[in-house]
Amino acid sequence: MNKRLLAITIAASLAAPLTVMAEGAEIYGIAHVTVDKISVDDGSANAEGWFVTSRNSRLGVKGSEDLGGGLKAVYKMEFGVAMDSGGGLTGRNQYVGLSGGMGTVLLGRHDTPTKMVQGKFDVFNDTIADMATTATHAGVSGDIRADNVIAYLSPKMGGMQMIVALLPGEGNTTLTPACTGTSPCDGISDGVSVSFTYEAGPLYVGAALDSGDIVADNMRLAATYNMDALQVGFLYNTKSDDAGDDTDFTDDEKAMGLSAKFAMGDNAVKAQYISVTDFGGTANADGTNMTFGYDMNMSARTTVYALLNMYSPDVAGGPSEDETALSVGVSHSF
Amino acid sequence: MNKRLLAITIAASLAAPLTVMAEGAEIYGIAHVTVDKISVDDGSANAEGWFVTSRNSRLGVKGSEDLGGGLKAVYKMEFGVAMDSGGGLTGRNQYVGLSGGMGTVLLGRHDTPTKMVQGKFDVFNDTIADMATTATHAGVSGDIRADNVIAYLSPKMGGMQMIVALLPGEGNTTLTPACTGTSPCDGISDGVSVSFTYEAGPLYVGAALDSGDIVADNMRLAATYNMDALQVGFLYNTKSDDAGDDTDFTDDEKAMGLSAKFAMGDNAVKAQYISVTDFGGTANADGTNMTFGYDMNMSARTTVYALLNMYSPDVAGGPSEDETALSVGVSHSF
Amino acid sequence: MNKRLLAITIAASLAAPLTVMAEGAEIYGIAHVTVDKISVDDGSANAEGWFVTSRNSRLGVKGSEDLGGGLKAVYKMEFGVAMDSGGGLTGRNQYVGLSGGMGTVLLGRHDTPTKMVQGKFDVFNDTIADMATTATHAGVSGDIRADNVIAYLSPKMGGMQMIVALLPGEGNTTLTPACTGTSPCDGISDGVSVSFTYEAGPLYVGAALDSGDIVADNMRLAATYNMDALQVGFLYNTKSDDAGDDTDFTDDEKAMGLSAKFAMGDNAVKAQYISVTDFGGTANADGTNMTFGYDMNMSARTTVYALLNMYSPDVAGGPSEDETALSVGVSHSF
Repeated sequence: MNKRLLAITIAASLAAPLTVMAEGAEIYGIAHVTVDKISVDDGSANAEGWFVTSRNSRLGVKGSEDLGGGLKAVYKMEFGVAMDSGGGLTGRNQYVGLSGGMGTVLLGRHDTPTKMVQGKFDVFNDTIADMATTATHAGVSGDIRADNVIAYLSPKMGGMQMIVALLPGEGNTTLTPACTGTSPCDGISDGVSVSFTYEAGPLYVGAALDSGDIVADNMRLAATYNMDALQVGFLYNTKSDDAGDDTDFTDDEKAMGLSAKFAMGDNAVKAQYISVTDFGGTANADGTNMTFGYDMNMSARTTVYALLNMYSPDVAGGPSEDETALSVGVSHSF
Repeated sequence: MNKRLLAITIAASLAAPLTVMAEGAEIYGIAHVTVDKISVDDGSANAEGWFVTSRNSRLGVKGSEDLGGGLKAVYKMEFGVAMDSGGGLTGRNQYVGLSGGMGTVLLGRHDTPTKMVQGKFDVFNDTIADMATTATHAGVSGDIRADNVIAYLSPKMGGMQMIVALLPGEGNTTLTPACTGTSPCDGISDGVSVSFTYEAGPLYVGAALDSGDIVADNMRLAATYNMDALQVGFLYNTKSDDAGDDTDFTDDEKAMGLSAKFAMGDNAVKAQYISVTDFGGTANADGTNMTFGYDMNMSARTTVYALLNMYSPDVAGGPSEDETALSVGVSHSF
Repeated sequence: MNKRLLAITIAASLAAPLTVMAEGAEIYGIAHVTVDKISVDDGSANAEGWFVTSRNSRLGVKGSEDLGGGLKAVYKMEFGVAMDSGGGLTGRNQYVGLSGGMGTVLLGRHDTPTKMVQGKFDVFNDTIADMATTATHAGVSGDIRADNVIAYLSPKMGGMQMIVALLPGEGNTTLTPACTGTSPCDGISDGVSVSFTYEAGPLYVGAALDSGDIVADNMRLAATYNMDALQVGFLYNTKSDDAGDDTDFTDDEKAMGLSAKFAMGDNAVKAQYISVTDFGGTANADGTNMTFGYDMNMSARTTVYALLNMYSPDVAGGPSEDETALSVGVSHSF
């Protein structure tokens, strides 16, 4: 190696960025913005029209540290970014914990196991047709990101995994009926969410349950199956009354969903059907969401897509107009 | 190459940080804080005195991904940081989009083309004497960072570029007069901002216009010219009434500015004059801002500066006291 | 060097992350969450129970730039992250400044010298037993992070350092009594905080004082001494009345603290005693905090710990119940 080559070599090394960051740290995010045209049958002001909307855009840092003996420290701080309206950051999943052969324990803020159990069912996740859409659009309940979480994720054994999240109530006084007197919500498990999942080749199935004084009794079943380029999915979700929970239903709510995604080279065609009965526990407040979409994957990180979402309510005494949304979006992961 | 050299080479490479970040991602920011001494002729309490102020300090992540075929995905998430008072982050320009030979399309939140057309005119940009100072200080209107932007930037052809931003009103109900009834502000272009710029060697000229129901009718002309170490600039800006806009002027406002910057080695002497007539559309509410400054560029990234800003109002029935600000600041880009 | 080796060398260099970041920039943070069991003698609702709490978790960027001639630009933007409840970021120390042989000048937001003078005294810093606990728990006053700071840090000479922070009042109108009329709080030093510290081998001593119209008159003495694996510490803090300050005590408050930390290999046993007299300036409102803890340092960056904190008030007419907290936490620095 002559001196000139050595100089090149060292220069090349030094040209690498001189950022100092902890080993294993990763900065990441998703920039996802859509242009939406929404039409309402009765032409309701402020509901229909054109919209530019940030769709769960996010920015985060995460990482792990090898502690030896098969043990790792893990952490994540993820923030929501309202790229259309420029508010400050909001909190998403944020935790610190330890991971080893016996599983992982996380402390912080996290999606409940019931939310996570959907797996890849929702082929319109993070879009205007996300299955957890707003109350007037017949979305599926149970997609909760909980504060004050103590979570345990078992190792995967034979494709099976259990996840448990304990949710201390921390004396929450904002619930109806309030956590007071004989039910002070000061325990370590005022809310509990637990899921069981099983993966075997093309099959994924999961079941989950929320219960306790500070969460509604959500129950969720989900399954997806891959046949070559086609993925099909099924979801069933119920939410029921529970004295002391934060919504105090008088009736049960049920939701059922079917999804399909068909890959064509780099692109994909997608369809999804969600049907909700007695939405929010209101008798006879039903509705369906039907969505069709086309994804152009410009790269592994960049997708341009279009979708058509049709919401059809069947509500006694509630909003009863059909609504159609055409949404064109760009999603870029970094 | 002997083994020792190889070892050095590999060690140097491995010593590079182990951060994982998407290719092309960049974290950047500006830390800019000033110490200001403000004097008001009548000694108004709470207006005069000493101040430590963060001046548009910011932190962001931006990047691009090569999608092949001349196409790129581009994104930016930029946040304001109140380094003097420690609030949370605020949103600045934030977008995701695609860029190719036919130009660039961005979705999100962005300065309007009218704001951008100023180019390098404002030699006191981001200081206490920024041309867009507060309402009582005869600042230039039209420096808008808009939510819900669909922007198109043409390629530069022969030094010329066009930028268009469409601003959907999204049923905005906070305007005066409100966007309701026959004017529901539910279109894709309830506001439009468009600019044309031309650059040729030392010359830069630009013209821009805002119009629509959700923005005032701002019109802006800007030009800068470089003569060796000297840059001179000119700006003309008008804001006029428009039924349905968000300010509902009863009169027009006009602003005119002249700026000069003279480089002396690493340092620079700067001067700027802004004159505003009928500020905020109030007849006979005039004023001028005269600013002199000296920049010591400690490096390409770090500047220490001092400036003297003199505000002279000529307002019938309004604040009428002269105000003088001496501001010493440090600005560091990273 | 043959071509193959050259290729390996260059490949290794290129394999380094392609992040672009300013030279010397560092992204860092602490993810620190605890599970706490709090018991109150009288079983007060909403005070006792189980809690998951983020403990001063943070995320920041900091760096420096060599300006030549012994001069550096320095900056930091540090944010608090509520990892348990997912709010947005909050501001912590944030500044930009210059550092050279004559010392360092910082502008922005920073802990006062009086806060910093504690050095390593508080062996439960950032835990539930942080010496600056809430008003009802006999914490030590004077741990202030001030807005609008102009700080000067002298170079260390013979182990001695002086730090001065000037705090302009900026016409603050929220104080009691208000900064108005003859006391408009518009100066550059409406508050001043100054500290002197001395380090020599195992010994650290420091003294600091706050004074002025916008801060209480806090006075603090701190000392730590290391004897092999044992560190012992002492703290004395007083807060006294001052017309025009923001708390308007009618009595003085005094606090005294003792701490000890004993390293056992990678782990450590810790104990701390804090006694406060006339808390908040209320005569006969006394209390003590006694804390014992055990740290398991899983690595230089990851600590798992448990602590027991016992608060014993002795308050005439105030909260008078003993409180016990058991806190188990994970803290990971990155």
